[in-house]
Amino acid sequence: MSTAESRFPAVRYGARLRRAAELGAVAGLDALLITPGPDLRYLIGSRAESFERLTCLVIPTDGSTAAVVVPRLELASLNESAVTELALPVRDWVDGQDPYAIVAEFVPAGGKVAVADAMPALHLVPLAATFDHVPVLATPVIRDLRMIKDSDEIEALRRAGAAIDRVHARMGEWLRPGRTEAQVAADITAAIIAEGHTEAAFVIVGSGPHGADPHHEVSDRVITTGDIVVIDIGGPVEPGYNSDSTRTYSIGEPDSAAAEKIALLEAAQQAAVDAVKPGARAEDIDAAARDLLAAEGLAEAFVHRTGHGIGLSVHEEPYIVGGNTEPLRAGMAFSIEPGIYFRGEWGARIEDIVIVTDDGCESVNRRPHGLTVLPG
Amino acid sequence: MSTAESRFPAVRYGARLRRAAELGAVAGLDALLITPGPDLRYLIGSRAESFERLTCLVIPTDGSTAAVVVPRLELASLNESAVTELALPVRDWVDGQDPYAIVAEFVPAGGKVAVADAMPALHLVPLAATFDHVPVLATPVIRDLRMIKDSDEIEALRRAGAAIDRVHARMGEWLRPGRTEAQVAADITAAIIAEGHTEAAFVIVGSGPHGADPHHEVSDRVITTGDIVVIDIGGPVEPGYNSDSTRTYSIGEPDSAAAEKIALLEAAQQAAVDAVKPGARAEDIDAAARDLLAAEGLAEAFVHRTGHGIGLSVHEEPYIVGGNTEPLRAGMAFSIEPGIYFRGEWGARIEDIVIVTDDGCESVNRRPHGLTVLPG
Repeated sequence: MSTAESRFPAVRYGARLRRAAELGAVAGLDALLITPGPDLRYLIGSRAESFERLTCLVIPTDGSTAAVVVPRLELASLNESAVTELALPVRDWVDGQDPYAIVAEFVPAGGKVAVADAMPALHLVPLAATFDHVPVLATPVIRDLRMIKDSDEIEALRRAGAAIDRVHARMGEWLRPGRTEAQVAADITAAIIAEGHTEAAFVIVGSGPHGADPHHEVSDRVITTGDIVVIDIGGPVEPGYNSDSTRTYSIGEPDSAAAEKIALLEAAQQAAVDAVKPGARAEDIDAAARDLLAAEGLAEAFVHRTGHGIGLSVHEEPYIVGGNTEPLRAGMAFSIEPGIYFRGEWGARIEDIVIVTDDGCESVNRRPHGLTVLPG
Repeated sequence: MSTAESRFPAVRYGARLRRAAELGAVAGLDALLITPGPDLRYLIGSRAESFERLTCLVIPTDGSTAAVVVPRLELASLNESAVTELALPVRDWVDGQDPYAIVAEFVPAGGKVAVADAMPALHLVPLAATFDHVPVLATPVIRDLRMIKDSDEIEALRRAGAAIDRVHARMGEWLRPGRTEAQVAADITAAIIAEGHTEAAFVIVGSGPHGADPHHEVSDRVITTGDIVVIDIGGPVEPGYNSDSTRTYSIGEPDSAAAEKIALLEAAQQAAVDAVKPGARAEDIDAAARDLLAAEGLAEAFVHRTGHGIGLSVHEEPYIVGGNTEPLRAGMAFSIEPGIYFRGEWGARIEDIVIVTDDGCESVNRRPHGLTVLPG
């Protein structure tokens, strides 16, 4: 297989490892220790899920080669990664050996280490003993890499966005009076797969009062004429990048007061999108949506942050939330999803994924934003 | 709902929390901090999966009440838990607050804390800073509870075992020459669900040389007459207890040398089962299988431990491995699964889940153990 055809091109993953080492050195770290999770997937393409036995990518920051420590029984998991193409040294271990001591062999004595935020305590506690200090989180280093999507990643996010748009476009096939939220969700789940995702990562069908709980998933509540329904859905497309899009539907013609409030929500979502450009701060985007809703007396109804970064994880940096002064940069990808919630009554949310461009942003979701009226 | 009908009976979960506190006190700990994962599910029934925002059960060991710290947005997740029936105090928090400081309010100043082994570094690192020491693992405390199954848990393991036996009994419907491992695995996956599991946690179809890799899952290799095929399958049944059973099949009549070796493997598996009784050590069970195979010149072919505990996790304590001197006690549940592997040629494994009784053990799997010959 030529490098151009590889699923794990050495040029892509090699650059990520080098950049991680450089940023780690700048942060005063001697090594990054990355266990299975999205960081490992980003850095070497591996989807390993080992838990009880340590698998760990060790990235020294002095320019020496990265290495992988892996249980002998799980060596085959590295076939599905860039380890071979990058010719990374692999050190396997068997039950009875101390894998933490093996990790330490790749780190300068007395070196300061950082760990992936997904590393379980099962491994972090013995590593802290081995290195005689509490590792810091590698998050600030890795997030600086993962936050800025390259062209392949942006293309994957566009494909994910188009796939979930096709699911929303078909909502009228499933979302009808007399059906339960769970029945609608089952159809949506099948469609998420049919439209090109590898799985349905989440399917929220919040009808009537359930829509007022932002974290409601599904229930056996029967959809009824007059319901406002929040549909928040998504999942990964190969090679692992996620979609996430919310639209709000009305079963039959909506109550005019609700329709007016949802029109304000649409304006708030658009105001946040319009505020996106390189140099704006993450919290500015949150404020753009929040201030508009507050000016209309809806401050109390908007109970969560405006958005979250997205990529290999559904939720990642940058978080679009008050207090986050992170300046936006081209290549960042995140959701813009203000919502309004009236406990016991109804809720609404509108969500697109946007990618920061040189002078604004591109939305990967193109479905109409306003309340979509379906037959009641 | 009366207590007797509750899915989260206060009597069961209250007893577990009290016992955890008692064992924590004996271990010199002041509090156990349990984040989402199997330990949280065991202790309060919660299947919460939150990651980025801290959800944490705090169990003080001085007899004062346990409490739950939870993001306000995820409060609803506690409805599916024993929190209400136990009347546990709940402290919710919102973005911008320091959830680690809230956890600390429930722990005596200067107190020594232990954490669930699944707690991610994302939370463990800031907790170490908040408490000014590296927490120890709560594993030794929790495992002492989780290792000894109560009657409800044993009943669930029996139901799981019977369900996976029904899948093995139907193997001839799917495992035929000309089909790929992946096609066979898809049928097995559907049958695992159809026979009463809530999901197929793992499906290994290792045909021919693939059977020689204990951690092979599936591939597009086509099953061929003459293949020896390892089928290792399982998943959870409500309320979350797992099945895990391996049988080895021959597609057409086997080579006589292979059949002889597999007969020895069957004897080794039986020898390990026969060695199980209260007071025997975990490593004795491993040795019973290993010594028999070694005496027949197969020491090098048996490359992994003999078994692992099972319950809410597929892999948990006790591990049946050399060096583990843990004495067996009635109520422990674990796999006995010796295997023999010949790289590039074939492999075989036989696995039952057994539960330690007062004078031996009960196997929850009842399918014939020897090589099952299917039409070639």
